[in-house]
Formats: sequence, structure tokens, C-alpha cells
Amino acid sequence: MSDKKIPYKIYLAENEIPKQWYNVRADMKNKPAPLLNPGTLKPMTAEELAPVFCEELVAQELNNDDAYIDIPEEIQNFYKMYRPAPLIRAYFLEKALDTPAKIYYKFEGNNTSGSHKLNSAIAQAYYAKKQGLKGVTTETGAGQWGTALSMACSYFDLDCKVYMVKVSYEQKPFRREVMRTYGASVTPSPSTHTAVGRKILEAHPGTSGSLGCAISEAVEVATTTDGYRYVLGSVLNQVLLHQSVIGLEAKAALEKYGVKPDIIIGCAGGGSNLGGLISPFMGEKLRGEADYRIIAVEPASCPSFTRGKFAYDFCDTGMVCPLAKMYTLGSGFIPSANHAGGLRYHGMSSTLSQLYHDGLMEATAVEQTSVFEAAEKFARVEGILPAPESSHAIKAAIDEALKCKETGEEKTILFGLTGTGYFDMVAYEKFNDGVMTDYIPSDSDLQKGFDGIPKFPGNEF
Amino acid sequence: MSDKKIPYKIYLAENEIPKQWYNVRADMKNKPAPLLNPGTLKPMTAEELAPVFCEELVAQELNNDDAYIDIPEEIQNFYKMYRPAPLIRAYFLEKALDTPAKIYYKFEGNNTSGSHKLNSAIAQAYYAKKQGLKGVTTETGAGQWGTALSMACSYFDLDCKVYMVKVSYEQKPFRREVMRTYGASVTPSPSTHTAVGRKILEAHPGTSGSLGCAISEAVEVATTTDGYRYVLGSVLNQVLLHQSVIGLEAKAALEKYGVKPDIIIGCAGGGSNLGGLISPFMGEKLRGEADYRIIAVEPASCPSFTRGKFAYDFCDTGMVCPLAKMYTLGSGFIPSANHAGGLRYHGMSSTLSQLYHDGLMEATAVEQTSVFEAAEKFARVEGILPAPESSHAIKAAIDEALKCKETGEEKTILFGLTGTGYFDMVAYEKFNDGVMTDYIPSDSDLQKGFDGIPKFPGNEF
Repeated sequence: MSDKKIPYKIYLAENEIPKQWYNVRADMKNKPAPLLNPGTLKPMTAEELAPVFCEELVAQELNNDDAYIDIPEEIQNFYKMYRPAPLIRAYFLEKALDTPAKIYYKFEGNNTSGSHKLNSAIAQAYYAKKQGLKGVTTETGAGQWGTALSMACSYFDLDCKVYMVKVSYEQKPFRREVMRTYGASVTPSPSTHTAVGRKILEAHPGTSGSLGCAISEAVEVATTTDGYRYVLGSVLNQVLLHQSVIGLEAKAALEKYGVKPDIIIGCAGGGSNLGGLISPFMGEKLRGEADYRIIAVEPASCPSFTRGKFAYDFCDTGMVCPLAKMYTLGSGFIPSANHAGGLRYHGMSSTLSQLYHDGLMEATAVEQTSVFEAAEKFARVEGILPAPESSHAIKAAIDEALKCKETGEEKTILFGLTGTGYFDMVAYEKFNDGVMTDYIPSDSDLQKGFDGIPKFPGNEF
Repeated sequence: MSDKKIPYKIYLAENEIPKQWYNVRADMKNKPAPLLNPGTLKPMTAEELAPVFCEELVAQELNNDDAYIDIPEEIQNFYKMYRPAPLIRAYFLEKALDTPAKIYYKFEGNNTSGSHKLNSAIAQAYYAKKQGLKGVTTETGAGQWGTALSMACSYFDLDCKVYMVKVSYEQKPFRREVMRTYGASVTPSPSTHTAVGRKILEAHPGTSGSLGCAISEAVEVATTTDGYRYVLGSVLNQVLLHQSVIGLEAKAALEKYGVKPDIIIGCAGGGSNLGGLISPFMGEKLRGEADYRIIAVEPASCPSFTRGKFAYDFCDTGMVCPLAKMYTLGSGFIPSANHAGGLRYHGMSSTLSQLYHDGLMEATAVEQTSVFEAAEKFARVEGILPAPESSHAIKAAIDEALKCKETGEEKTILFGLTGTGYFDMVAYEKFNDGVMTDYIPSDSDLQKGFDGIPKFPGNEF
């Protein structure tokens, strides 16, 4: 089909929004390793997970068999509020790069949470409501996930307690106010509300907090408060399941025009966006129906895939959560403060880790200033100011498109544009002022993180 | 046609984006009064306007005859970057209000400028480029217009000099950084770059600036720098012309489903959004083909329509611009600092002023806290965090929908949702903290502004 007929933006019709999520684990020969109980080192059972997570979400977490799971009607209705998300043909970018490559991006930023996080937040809130819970707890760093969850909880009239890393709470008040506008309570972490918070404050009176600490507080509150559970916006299998809506929509939109991507690119922090975007394509690849080059892009300052170990590790710094087998820098690893964007997680989705380990996808690490250069170029020609996270994928997509320019190949590139950068202007300001720097951890920096990975038989790395 | 078939979001196809703007003045029996030269009190000629504005824009400004004006292909291409904008059926809001009213809103916020301002910015930048200019100058308050213009200038590789009210420059750095990311130079006003700026700084050393002062600086730079012209984001006839794309798209989307609105509501500051939204509907009304109730919504703290005088007045505080006949509070009127949102302009589009004067539309003034209450309700059920400006229209739409609930009437309401509130979280924080207050100017407050309106024969009020 001729390029001329492909519009700038491909919108599916409302009745084409997926009615089932796709569970890529069902098609994986090598399933992701199960979560382990850190005490017994045995796989976590549904019963063990139930005090922390909603029942139905536990079932989804452990379900490696069903390829398709129905999206409840209430969630489908909510999806209509901001979906289908457009698949955009990057004609302006192609022209600016003078590349024969055909570039498409799935844009998930046109909702008030500003990112794809809402796709899973609404699902997790729904199952909490269905279970008759009063509310949920979570942590947030810069606030994308917390914002998405506050919107979802407001919709289902659930209480939403967000523990926000103190430095973000104070220095990034805007997303905090969006959460409050949606009725969430936002507490700077560490706080005096929890035993773990008080303990940390006693040990480090002036601490500005960390994501790991906020997770530990949110989990403590969920497990000690009647009618509450903890929810998490990335890493987990259930999150990748909900986020499959990204890839399913992108694939359906491409198929309307008979387009098959050669290369699929996504940024990777905990894996929620990448996992969602690639799911249905990876499914075809696993079933031998198609082949795609799939590239995870991570920051050079937090290089889980490219320099991490494939091992069982704690999901949180506080070491209260189960052990997950994943590419990890060690739960004690904290990226340099000069790293501006998100994607700061020390580990990675178990599902994506297994796929990467099995050679089904590639990974690349990119440096911060080059990411912002790509972001600026993209913003100027495509008109969308991208989130720093998303800009990692932009950088890799531009690099691949420029390779096509060299070779003359007309490859089709699809990447995920997870969100907008409207709440990241402090980082853009650094870039605009020319004071942004790069940071690549040394081998010995990384070794300190690896030293904290628990050692037990079968966990050699 | 049954409601069931109307989706949540109606997107026109790309080839349905309007290819002509609609000029409502062509259908007005009583044309808007011409701009006057403040020295001679004679209508401004194209020659007199040419040193300030681009030639083609002057022609559009003075064109009261042609109903349709072709949108140049380059502008049509740019529109494809972020248009068509969706027309959204507010099913969630209708349900929350339990109203028989059918509510639609045209959402113009899904672009990086965050508002409808981009529709005219790209047109003004195009004509500047076509004329072979090096760049343009403008003023901006909170930054919506400046952001839109910086995006447009970046696209056409034009220099963009923005004079930003100093208090906003310092306290609202985020939009400033968006402008810089798009390559604009942003100068806090008053500055030492201009004679008028230096004069004001000498008289008021600690001043935090005003929009009127920023306009004067931008005009001075445009008229004294080779290859530059001044551009303005509201009030002018040319702006309403470009913004007609909002109403044309909204009308086309409604017609796809056989829907005719009974009530059309828009917020009004200088009139750019309201004028654009209502244009084609007003055209039908003027031609006697249909009737609509049209409501302008303004802040009670800056009530140009509802309490202003219909008279010739200066468009700027510095009194360097031509005189326009409009509803005005006097060019010396400055809304109370406790007014959080935009819509702070002392005057109003001449075109809208004439239509209002001729009884073709209504106006209502609403108070700030009630506007934010409406904004919060809307955000929670419709999932979009609205700009404070847009929330004035939301407030009025909710009021009309609640009247329908009382009477049982199934009226169809269309309102303009001009933008998102992501850069207005300081105002939302005030609201969330319960410290937002209302301000209604007293008659004697207003009289001070009226006293500054120039007196000359024919300008009785």
C-alpha cells in the first residue's frame, strides 16, 4: 500500500480498543522464573501474596498459561476516556532526518497522568474495588505512576495513599498537586506514619528519601491496614499484561495499512512500557509466525540489561518484597543524582529478563545528554515535548533511522512514546542551560550493587 | 440517531480538517468597528499597520467581506501534527451530574502548547516567513501563547523573541523552558532591551511587570528591528479567523451524527477561543439558517462583557497600539493578583463585542472558587485536568446541565475546552489547600479603569 495513504495519525475506532489483554508468558517456552519467598526461597504461593496484592491480580501474576484475558467492561469503559491512543507516522521526523526509514510511534501521553501508566492503574484499582477494598497504597518517585493511580482510584471512589520520595515531594510539587486534585493523600517519604519510616528517619535524620524506602512504607501500610492492598506500576507480570493494550492497539493500527515493523524499540526502566508494546509482536516471534528486531533502551547510568546480572534479587531496597529473577544491578544500587529522567529502577521485569536472556531481544544503553538532544530534535519537528524516559526510545529510533540513511534501507521502525515531559522541565532547563552531564557507573560502582544481591544455591551470577 | 452510536470521542479524518477558515465578519450586518489611529482618530490603513504586522495578516485583519479564506498548504500540513482535535461526548460528566442534557466539548489541549493558541500561531508564523522576515516578537503572561508561537517559529525556522511578564518568568519557569526548548529567546519584562522597558524600570525599579508593559516592549522591538514584526495571540480579527478551525471541526463532527447544539459556551479573555468556536454557528445564526444560544463566560474579577463599557479604547496599557471599539474595563484596569487563571485582558475582540452589543450572544461572569470546583469535578470524571481558563466554560456548562436536570429538558450543550492545566498547578495547589479566594471589583474599582478610556466625539459611554 502506498505511503501516501497513511495518515499522520492512525486512530482505531472506539470499538477496536482491545477487549482482551495478551499474556506473552503463555507463548514463552522458557517461562519467567517465579517470585521466591525470601525466607524459604520457595516460589511464592497465591496465599502468600494475598496479604500484599489483590486476589485477582495475584492470579494474573501467577498465570503463565492463558494467552488472552478478558478486559472487564468497567475497565473497557474507562479506556474509552483516553484510548485508543494514536499511532503516529513520524513524517516530520523522517523528513528532518532525510532517512528512507519509515518511523511510527505509539503515543501514550495524551492523558492527564501523562503516560502509559494509566493502563495498569485503572486495572489494579478495578480489581481492588471488586474485592471490596477501601483503598490502595503505593510509592511514587517523580509522580507519573502516583498520578495515574490517583486518577484510577478517583474513578472507582477508592482511597489512594501515595508515598512520594521526599525530595520529589518538595522539589516537584506539580504532580503532587495533580494527585491531590484527584483526591489522593500524598505523604513525603520517609514519614513518621510507618515503623520503617521512623526507623530510617532515626538512622538518617536529614534524608531526602528513596524509591526503595517509599516502597517499604507503602507495603507496610497496605499489610497493616484493614481493607488495603499495595499496588505497583511496573516490573510485575500483571503490569505487563495490562500494558499489552499498547502493543495490541499499535499492531492493529499498523495492520489496517498492511505495515509490518522491522524494528521495535522501547525504553526500559522496570519494563512496563517495553513489555506492553512488544507483547503481541513477541508473541508472533515466539510462535514462529514473524520475526522482529526488538530493542530495549536503558540509561547508561542505570544499565540493568546491558551490565546487570541475571539473578534472584530483591525488588525493593528495604528487602521486604519477594525475590524476583531478573537482570539487576543489586537492590542497593541507586543511580547518580545527576540522572534526570526516570528509568532509575535497579532491576527489570522477570518476563523481559527471560526473553532477553533467551536472545529474543536486544538492549542498548544511551547517555543522558544524547537523549535530551534527541528529545529536543523530536519536540521541534513532531510537536510533542517528550518525557525523558520516552526520549531514550527516540534516541535509539533516530540512530536506527540514520543507519538506514547510510545503507539506503527502507526499514520500518516502531517505537513507544510513553509520555510527555511537561512535568520534567527542570531537567529540560538543565539541558537548555548546557549544564547537563553524563554519568556512567564504573565497574567498581556496579560491583557494590552486585555485592548486595543475595547468595544462595542456584543464584550464582 | 441513537445516542448509543455516538462514541466518546469523535475524530474527523485527516482529510476532513478544514481547508478554509471562516470569516464571520462577512456575514455580520453590523461590521466590527475599525481600528483607529490614536493620533488622527481615523481608521488605521493597511499602510499604517504594515510596520507592526505582517502584510497578509493586515489584509486578513481588514477583510470584512470574504466569508472563506484558503488555509495555505503549509499550514494545513502543520495542522496534521496535532489536528483534528477531538470532539468529546461528556458521557462521564453527564452521568455524574445525572442530567438529561447531552454535553459535548471540543478539546484543544492535546498539543505541547497545551491550548488552542497554536492554531493562530502557526498561521502568523507562516505569513511572517512568507514575507521573508527574520523573526517575530510577542508578549506572554503565563506562557500559553508564547509556547505556541515558539513551536510555530521553530517549525518555520524563524527567530522568536518573547517578552514574558517578569513575575511569570520567575515564578512559572516551566513554560519558559518549553519556549527555550523550541529555540525562542525569553526575556523578563520590563527589560533594559527597550526604551519603554528602561523608562518603566526607572519609574518603578522593583516592578514585577505587566502584560501591558510586555506588549509595549514587544511592539517596540518589532518596529525598530529590521526584518521583524509583532504578533498577538488574541483579540484581533485575524486571530478569530484562524481560530475558526475549532468551530468548523466541531460543527463537522456533530453533523456526522446529526447533532445540533442548543447552547454553545466558551470562555472569553480576549476572545480567541470563543470567537473561533462559535464562528460557523454564529454564521448560520446571522444568515437566519439556525438559532443557537451562545454564552461567553468571563471571570467575575475581570468582567469586560458583563460590566465593561462598549467604547474605543487602547489595546495595551502602554497606549502604543491602535484604538479598538470593544467592551472594555479601561486599559489601566489590572485584575486582582489573587485571580489565578488567565482571561485577565481588560478588553475584548471587536468582533465579539459587536455581536454581543447586537444581542446575538449572552455573557455571564463566574467566580474563581466555583470555577476550580467545576474544574476538579470535571478532572475527576472526564480524566482531563483543565486549564483554569477553560474551566470557566466548564462551570457554565455544568450550570446549564443542572438546569436541564431541574426542567427535564434534553438540551445539547457544546463547550470549548481550550487547554490543559498542567502548568497551572500553583493555582490548583491554592484550591487544594483551601486558600483560594474570590474577588469582585467594586463599582468604584471599575470606575478608575473607565476614567482612563479616551474621550473624544463619538466615544461616549
